[in-house]
Amino acid sequence: MSPQVTILGEILTIGDEILQGRTVNGNAAYIGRSLVQAGVDVRRATTTADRMDEIIAAVRQAMTHADIVVITGGLGPTPDDLTRDALSSVFEMPLVVDPEQQEHVEGIFKRFGRAVPPVSENQFLVLQGATRIHNQGGTAAGIHIEKDGKHLFALPGVPQEMRDIMDDYVIPVVREAYPDMCRLMKTLRMAGIGESLLVETMGDRSLIEQYVELAYLPNHGLLDVRLTARSNDPHEAEFQIASAESIIRECAGEHVYGLGTVRIERVIGDILLNRCQKLAVAESCTGGLICSRLTDIPGSSNWFERGFITYSNRAKNELLSVPNELIQAHGAVSEQVAVAMAEGARINSGAHWSTATTGIAGPDGGTPEKPVGTVWIAISSENETHTKLLQLGAADRERVKLRATHLLLYELYKSLIDSVE
Amino acid sequence: MSPQVTILGEILTIGDEILQGRTVNGNAAYIGRSLVQAGVDVRRATTTADRMDEIIAAVRQAMTHADIVVITGGLGPTPDDLTRDALSSVFEMPLVVDPEQQEHVEGIFKRFGRAVPPVSENQFLVLQGATRIHNQGGTAAGIHIEKDGKHLFALPGVPQEMRDIMDDYVIPVVREAYPDMCRLMKTLRMAGIGESLLVETMGDRSLIEQYVELAYLPNHGLLDVRLTARSNDPHEAEFQIASAESIIRECAGEHVYGLGTVRIERVIGDILLNRCQKLAVAESCTGGLICSRLTDIPGSSNWFERGFITYSNRAKNELLSVPNELIQAHGAVSEQVAVAMAEGARINSGAHWSTATTGIAGPDGGTPEKPVGTVWIAISSENETHTKLLQLGAADRERVKLRATHLLLYELYKSLIDSVE
Repeated sequence: MSPQVTILGEILTIGDEILQGRTVNGNAAYIGRSLVQAGVDVRRATTTADRMDEIIAAVRQAMTHADIVVITGGLGPTPDDLTRDALSSVFEMPLVVDPEQQEHVEGIFKRFGRAVPPVSENQFLVLQGATRIHNQGGTAAGIHIEKDGKHLFALPGVPQEMRDIMDDYVIPVVREAYPDMCRLMKTLRMAGIGESLLVETMGDRSLIEQYVELAYLPNHGLLDVRLTARSNDPHEAEFQIASAESIIRECAGEHVYGLGTVRIERVIGDILLNRCQKLAVAESCTGGLICSRLTDIPGSSNWFERGFITYSNRAKNELLSVPNELIQAHGAVSEQVAVAMAEGARINSGAHWSTATTGIAGPDGGTPEKPVGTVWIAISSENETHTKLLQLGAADRERVKLRATHLLLYELYKSLIDSVE
Repeated sequence: MSPQVTILGEILTIGDEILQGRTVNGNAAYIGRSLVQAGVDVRRATTTADRMDEIIAAVRQAMTHADIVVITGGLGPTPDDLTRDALSSVFEMPLVVDPEQQEHVEGIFKRFGRAVPPVSENQFLVLQGATRIHNQGGTAAGIHIEKDGKHLFALPGVPQEMRDIMDDYVIPVVREAYPDMCRLMKTLRMAGIGESLLVETMGDRSLIEQYVELAYLPNHGLLDVRLTARSNDPHEAEFQIASAESIIRECAGEHVYGLGTVRIERVIGDILLNRCQKLAVAESCTGGLICSRLTDIPGSSNWFERGFITYSNRAKNELLSVPNELIQAHGAVSEQVAVAMAEGARINSGAHWSTATTGIAGPDGGTPEKPVGTVWIAISSENETHTKLLQLGAADRERVKLRATHLLLYELYKSLIDSVE
């Protein structure tokens, strides 16, 4: 890789609600991700209380250490919003009314048929000598200060407003300020393969790591592998990513179900939609989670036929035609019952495809032969019904449900792509 | 309220994965919450990169400003785990092998039938002059350093290990160090009432706020109201909480479904279990989310009978006996269909109670008469079936599902407590 300068970044989040753990700091994560992609080396993130002395100290310190400083929070109208005043003090820039900003704020209140209340009149103010960043979504303007070649951005704390300004203003400014710092990223989404097995399959990773940095991000049976190429030359970065991707794809095979942020349930839905096929889902231990995840996808009514949440044996019998004798002979958590559930769901619904889960989600109900985390899954089509036994360990109940859901979705995906249309 | 000393707290999180936004900083939120409850005034939280210079600078700064410093991360065995070395350098305490710690680490590897690999031998090390904090769940010992009346705790970054040590070691030490800093908290959990309506109902809040601080934490149709009393006298604090609670309960009435962290689905399950009654759930627009939330509760198989995810009209007809003519006459999203779904679910399953949802989750499918976010819900028992129309606005699909789920759970809860057994 080519040698390069380092751009140092620092993130400041203002707010007692984060320090006291009432809110998890999702804003800092979003800002960190965006800055990293723009080539910034984020070295520190600080959250400070809603106190003038703390904010001023944190801003001074950040400006000493970093080239790019991004602040969120404390720009609203209430007395505990202190960021604007703190910046005015640190940079010795007076606060003045900005007519354009005033018009924008008045427009927002007008839409609700109201005049601007006195408490919100401070939303007209901007720092003289700084650049006002327009906030389409709210009354709090962003602030951009450039000093000694360093950039400070103060953004509102409302996540959507922060993100819009981050994407539309901050990142373009950073890219323009450092046009040579290309950092290209690509994420390969996988399922049904763990980090350790993947690494083992890839063997000598030095071959890949001469091209890119790899990050493994596991999520209960799913695995994202993020490739990052750093280069001053965009073409070189693209070549590095492509080279590494082809090696990884060769090792991971059909475990790769998509790229970027696409969800596996979306991939499944798209295949079904293209084939004009429908899906029915029978769930015991996953308790509705599979149905809920599938129906999170917009337009899922075009391919999701119905779901059966058959918690009781009676429901398994009445809705899915699972013979009571089968349950008595093998137990509700058995390969035989999983098969009967899937086939019953498919036949009784008239759908082309069906799935079933039956298992022990815990914390009680485990036995030495079938410990907590034992889950049978089945996938059924007109051509065949196949099953898989999952041993998910004695994790907590919600984690067992989540892992079983992800692994079932992967088996369904694999059955769909393996089946001849 | 009585005057009091302030204990200043600071949180340090170590790790590139947080700075780069690959992980959201849930650890800092947990630590913040715990410290606040122990009476600590958390003024700053800093995340630093996995770099020796950054960690050392952050630790030095924290020890200058704060009385209580809690660090997480960077105690593992890999080369990017630098916290132990950084503390050794800052406090000039050499690293030495601790026989008890070595035995603990060897025991963990032994359980997997392995010897300790060379890379993990640094897990035997502790700081001479510091207190080793036993980590039941993992190999990384915690560190407790007491200096000039200040306390520094370094904890592993694995959330469960961090939490256990936080609860079992850090908080007891802090409480012992500052026995007079009583900060009593109580959370009232509500549903079906928004913050603004509650505040309006309470009228003059100064009456309550002379006793306690109030925080409103809304969550898509649910609302937590947290009461905090600060006093050096535990009896006074208890009296303050009790006084404020009684005023709020009078205003919020049956919207209060529980205290602390209890979930409304757990409260529902407990009522059903006590009455030996069962529940069946029919879902259209919520797509399985209600079933999934209910079956997250351990032991739900004792009161959750079954669920019908009837996305298609055919499924509504076949599984819930909703007449096709009814759907044609009123549309699938209508009060009549919601009633028929709930009654069909109850009668066809033999359960005592049933619920139904049918609505437009979006983003498509809305009309001027039935915009996205229109949801009919129904609750049915042998005695009556009642309905409610929700207008949830054109939020995104997942949010519509979540709000409808929470509001349905609240209506079910209300029906259960209102019904004579």
